[in-house]
Amino acid sequence: MNEIAWKTLLYDFYGEMLTDHQKEIFEDYYLHDLSYGEIADMKSTSRQGVYDTIKRTDKLLEKYENKLALIERYQDNKKIVEQISKLTYSEDSKEALLQIRKLAEETLANL
Amino acid sequence: MNEIAWKTLLYDFYGEMLTDHQKEIFEDYYLHDLSYGEIADMKSTSRQGVYDTIKRTDKLLEKYENKLALIERYQDNKKIVEQISKLTYSEDSKEALLQIRKLAEETLANL
Repeated sequence: MNEIAWKTLLYDFYGEMLTDHQKEIFEDYYLHDLSYGEIADMKSTSRQGVYDTIKRTDKLLEKYENKLALIERYQDNKKIVEQISKLTYSEDSKEALLQIRKLAEETLANL
Repeated sequence: MNEIAWKTLLYDFYGEMLTDHQKEIFEDYYLHDLSYGEIADMKSTSRQGVYDTIKRTDKLLEKYENKLALIERYQDNKKIVEQISKLTYSEDSKEALLQIRKLAEETLANL
């Protein structure tokens, strides 16, 4: 995954944990692709201040993922639901239901 | 849900976000059912200090659930997987697969 895709995913999952100030600067930098200088001008602050906010916000979002692993769990869940969805197109519907049951029981045990 | 069950659920989901000190006091109070005074003696701190830590930790855990809603999402996901599991026992396996597909597609859209 490239850096921007990863930052966007972190922001999707944990953005609500940030302050409005952190959100705005994070969005301007990663999502709207503005430079430190451009953001500093818009916010009437220093380039260094913008840089520090971005580094701090990056660390915070990575810390949340290390602690809660929501992205990892989301990707695992997605894979299982996609497998279930695919199985519903099987020719052998009795066998498909058995396999779906196994996946569903494993998922319930790991939720 | 009673208070202890709710606190336990919050702690299961967000405990990793707490400091070791907060974890220990939260566990002693809610999970081991010790009093403020007993915890204060064990930690060589004041009863007021223990009380403040518990109130602060309570607020923190509620804030995380308000922001991230992991418990709510967990309960929603659990319901869907249980529905899928139940459908695998249907007599009409073709119809069951259609219903499972619908649930899987809805889940993928909402994940």
